[in-house]
Amino acid sequence: MTAAAIPYTPPLKEIRFVLDHLAGMAEVAALPGFEDASPDMVDSILGEAAKIAENVLAPLNRIGDVQGAKLGTDGVARTAEGWGTAWQALVEGGWNGLPFDPSRGGMGLPNLLNTAVQEMWHSANMAFALCPMLTQGAVNAVQLYGSEALKDLYLPRMISGEWTGTMNITEPQAGSDLAATRSRAVPNGDHYLVTGQKIFITYGDHDLAENIVHLVLARLPDAPPGVKGISLFVVPKFLVNPDGSLGARNQVKCVSLEHKLGIHGSPTAVLSFGDEGGATGFLVGEPNRGLEYMFTMMNHARLNVAMQGLSIAERAYQQALAYARDRVQGKPLGWTEGQSKGIVNHPDVRRLLMGMKARIEAMRGILYTAAAAVDVAHHHADEATRGRAALLVDLLTPIAKGWCTETGQQLASDGVQVHGGMGFIEETGAAQHLRDARITTIYEGTTAIQANDLINRKILRDGGATANGLLDEIAALGGELSGHADEALRVTGAELTAAVHETRQAIAWVLTTAKQDPRLPAAASVTVLELMGVVAGGWQLARAAKVAAERLAEGDADTAFLSAKPLTARFFATHVLPKAAALRATVVNGSASVMALSEEQLFGAA
Amino acid sequence: MTAAAIPYTPPLKEIRFVLDHLAGMAEVAALPGFEDASPDMVDSILGEAAKIAENVLAPLNRIGDVQGAKLGTDGVARTAEGWGTAWQALVEGGWNGLPFDPSRGGMGLPNLLNTAVQEMWHSANMAFALCPMLTQGAVNAVQLYGSEALKDLYLPRMISGEWTGTMNITEPQAGSDLAATRSRAVPNGDHYLVTGQKIFITYGDHDLAENIVHLVLARLPDAPPGVKGISLFVVPKFLVNPDGSLGARNQVKCVSLEHKLGIHGSPTAVLSFGDEGGATGFLVGEPNRGLEYMFTMMNHARLNVAMQGLSIAERAYQQALAYARDRVQGKPLGWTEGQSKGIVNHPDVRRLLMGMKARIEAMRGILYTAAAAVDVAHHHADEATRGRAALLVDLLTPIAKGWCTETGQQLASDGVQVHGGMGFIEETGAAQHLRDARITTIYEGTTAIQANDLINRKILRDGGATANGLLDEIAALGGELSGHADEALRVTGAELTAAVHETRQAIAWVLTTAKQDPRLPAAASVTVLELMGVVAGGWQLARAAKVAAERLAEGDADTAFLSAKPLTARFFATHVLPKAAALRATVVNGSASVMALSEEQLFGAA
Repeated sequence: MTAAAIPYTPPLKEIRFVLDHLAGMAEVAALPGFEDASPDMVDSILGEAAKIAENVLAPLNRIGDVQGAKLGTDGVARTAEGWGTAWQALVEGGWNGLPFDPSRGGMGLPNLLNTAVQEMWHSANMAFALCPMLTQGAVNAVQLYGSEALKDLYLPRMISGEWTGTMNITEPQAGSDLAATRSRAVPNGDHYLVTGQKIFITYGDHDLAENIVHLVLARLPDAPPGVKGISLFVVPKFLVNPDGSLGARNQVKCVSLEHKLGIHGSPTAVLSFGDEGGATGFLVGEPNRGLEYMFTMMNHARLNVAMQGLSIAERAYQQALAYARDRVQGKPLGWTEGQSKGIVNHPDVRRLLMGMKARIEAMRGILYTAAAAVDVAHHHADEATRGRAALLVDLLTPIAKGWCTETGQQLASDGVQVHGGMGFIEETGAAQHLRDARITTIYEGTTAIQANDLINRKILRDGGATANGLLDEIAALGGELSGHADEALRVTGAELTAAVHETRQAIAWVLTTAKQDPRLPAAASVTVLELMGVVAGGWQLARAAKVAAERLAEGDADTAFLSAKPLTARFFATHVLPKAAALRATVVNGSASVMALSEEQLFGAA
Repeated sequence: MTAAAIPYTPPLKEIRFVLDHLAGMAEVAALPGFEDASPDMVDSILGEAAKIAENVLAPLNRIGDVQGAKLGTDGVARTAEGWGTAWQALVEGGWNGLPFDPSRGGMGLPNLLNTAVQEMWHSANMAFALCPMLTQGAVNAVQLYGSEALKDLYLPRMISGEWTGTMNITEPQAGSDLAATRSRAVPNGDHYLVTGQKIFITYGDHDLAENIVHLVLARLPDAPPGVKGISLFVVPKFLVNPDGSLGARNQVKCVSLEHKLGIHGSPTAVLSFGDEGGATGFLVGEPNRGLEYMFTMMNHARLNVAMQGLSIAERAYQQALAYARDRVQGKPLGWTEGQSKGIVNHPDVRRLLMGMKARIEAMRGILYTAAAAVDVAHHHADEATRGRAALLVDLLTPIAKGWCTETGQQLASDGVQVHGGMGFIEETGAAQHLRDARITTIYEGTTAIQANDLINRKILRDGGATANGLLDEIAALGGELSGHADEALRVTGAELTAAVHETRQAIAWVLTTAKQDPRLPAAASVTVLELMGVVAGGWQLARAAKVAAERLAEGDADTAFLSAKPLTARFFATHVLPKAAALRATVVNGSASVMALSEEQLFGAA
């Protein structure tokens, strides 16, 4: 099997449009602490990151898929050809430290800008980009909850990328149910002895960096049962001497790597801790608060996995678009002189491509808006503004994770479909995107776990106040556009208004039925999440269309680019937003039928 | 990677229910020519086929995936371990001849019964079952259009399965566009010299049988351009002596096998014909009518690929259900003593499983109904009845191919999701179903090709008469059930009635807009197909629910099985049928936006 590189061109113009006009890059850059985020610096970061994504990471994507990560006889996981050099390039550029504190070697730039960089890296090479993603998450957790000693010793090298980080949560019996966690940590002087087995550990072992800092959930001997008895530990692969140099090998053994459907280049490890008595670990923060701390990493990871949905879709879209431009099969219906004869002008191929484009722009709008809100929540001078932003992030996280990953899979599959028979041939590369994308609705919490979070913590907990507040904002935009002179904006506004109306009904139903039978909203939860994802996507495209129309009215000369925005919004409004009514109907009328069959009826039919 | 067998239990009770109560097995068996199809014979065939599927074919599914088909240094493709023995078992049982003429060695049994057998074989091992499927298609083509001499020489061994058949259509430049076919056939005495390259040839070479009969599309020297200049040829791998024994190797070379996303066990060949002057070929039927003849194979293959959608979904469902019964993750919400603590009782897992079950039953209803209509169309004594049945088959073929394969992919993906992280690990086997399923919306005509057929040949050609006739029948059932005493039937009837109403509007729109701009119905075509698939699925579940309610009212004691039918219909009615309104809205309001962007806007945005 050959490993020809498939090109990726970072969509800088689209990214810049969303940064500037939907996410408010200028406002974010003006927040306290982001003094270095000048427009020139933002331009420079985006341009340099694009070059690395296009020229360094993208060419390694197929190689990683074909060669995969392999466990050597020495017990060390090996990454594919060229991956080590690529990681060194990120370390040398300081890319891992982009959003972190300059006092520990970071660049002190906004999360929003980091998000744009992560988009490009995940598009270029999703399996590779998991390593910086998890390392940044680990930095966040140590930074927020670690002791000063721990931070001094570990953070500089994690921020530089000399050391990478992992998240050790899952055990064979404890997947979505963390209450079943069994790994143990016993006090032993200034540290703990950690024992247990963890599975599905992304970059749990590899040869990219000289040390790996594992963040591990385990129970103290006197811990209460369930999720309130889990603590968080730092367990380095190599012990660290007081001067920061590496000491002895710790008792963390890579038992095996998984054979996976996708992301072959990313080593997914089974790790055994403390086979000879106990791995040396250091408590992070207070005992029994590990789950709470881990959720810091987890929420970071959830928005990043949501980004993978967008990124893989963008990559699949670029490849499908290029194929559809070049591939000729008969003369397209209604073809006229001067048009391409490529299948891109066959109506159903165009429908698939437009569906990809519109949903990609919707996802980018949601994710960059959420990323900007993260910055506001952490940096704004006004407490109430910070609080509102935090609530928006909390609400958007499960919606983004659930909807963007489900959508990313659909679009990766659509990318295969555009290729016809060639899409099924591995050398084409379209199938890899589908295989890679398939993990995104599972890890960092399945779509059902996201939906459960949405229903219980983001809707029921505040009686729907935050969700309905967001719907008020979307409804206001829908109402405004419904009266617009431009037809595309008018249709978009009308469909958005109708979809908001359906969503309100679904939320009202959730609030009511939760009191009667909590199984009803649970059965409806993924459908509610999809409904809110659809509306959030429509909201972002409507915002983009409105901005574009305003700029055109102001005389902006970039007419091709700007006038595409209302047309793309109208496509989404007529192809995706109509689902809102069906989803509402399923929530309201269909939830009782989910649990209607007895076990005998379910199991006895074969 | 290990290759542990994953069990498959043929769903004989479900199959029998659909055969007897939805497809009318008794009426089919009473048709002229099916004198051997006694109830005992039907039972025996189903029972024996189930054993082969469960014990012979299913255990080879993973082995085929892991080992794949390989091209030997001798130019012969090798199938995986045990596959040759399994094929011999089919030959010895005469299974390949089930639906064929007893005078040439067939069993003379109904296509409907053969369909049930094919369901089990595709569930057990889709990559394997492609071989009998294509061989049966090749028999059909030779039987219908070949000369007596050709039939005498080839059919007995193809019907027995000693020789297999292939369909050679695609060339690198001619995928969906067969007008671009370049392979040539030059007269040479009593035969033709065939030259050209064909790609994507399923079982184009293998070691299962002693000869392979290729049915090849090629152009005669004086052929008119386009699809009206394509003829059909029999080109055997080994030439056949007049006594039926094998002669010299023909000039058909297996150049390579493709590396595919799925169906690894099925050799997909690039075949080169006539590298040393010309392969010996024999004209089938009249010159320049090859495409018409090939469509006999193709339509057979389309309903069979539709069946793969059902079959792979059934296999994925059984595996997901078994996993969900055994896997425990916390206590299910609202759990009560005596219930399983498996994740099957977590509401969203149950929702996924119910969605799989309901759609599987809908697909089975559609496919068996179509299969019975094939028998009626060929065997009924009354010409008008035959004609009506043929029109139903024509209408249902693109709907079944399009909707069942798209649905099969969705359900294979849902099967992965039920498994959580384990679903992404190849050893689990859930991912194989998704990989295998991914070809089904592509080969034998992509979903867009099916939709094009539906719009142009099945709706526009008769002004919507056949489609609206079927909708009348569905509406009558919907109306009847809407007034039923049972709530599940009432809801099902009401939702079905509403969905029919939406579908009528979409068809009316197609008829109107086709006169204005044919690109509009083309842009809407896949959405129209999905709409009709959804309604056809709801129709079959409503029929099943009605029969079950009647039998319960008559005192049938199988209450667990029968009372599940209305509940399953209600699930589909509230989770799938509400989409009809959204799909109609997209057809009517969204089609103009499909082609709205200029090429500059599409290609210039990056």
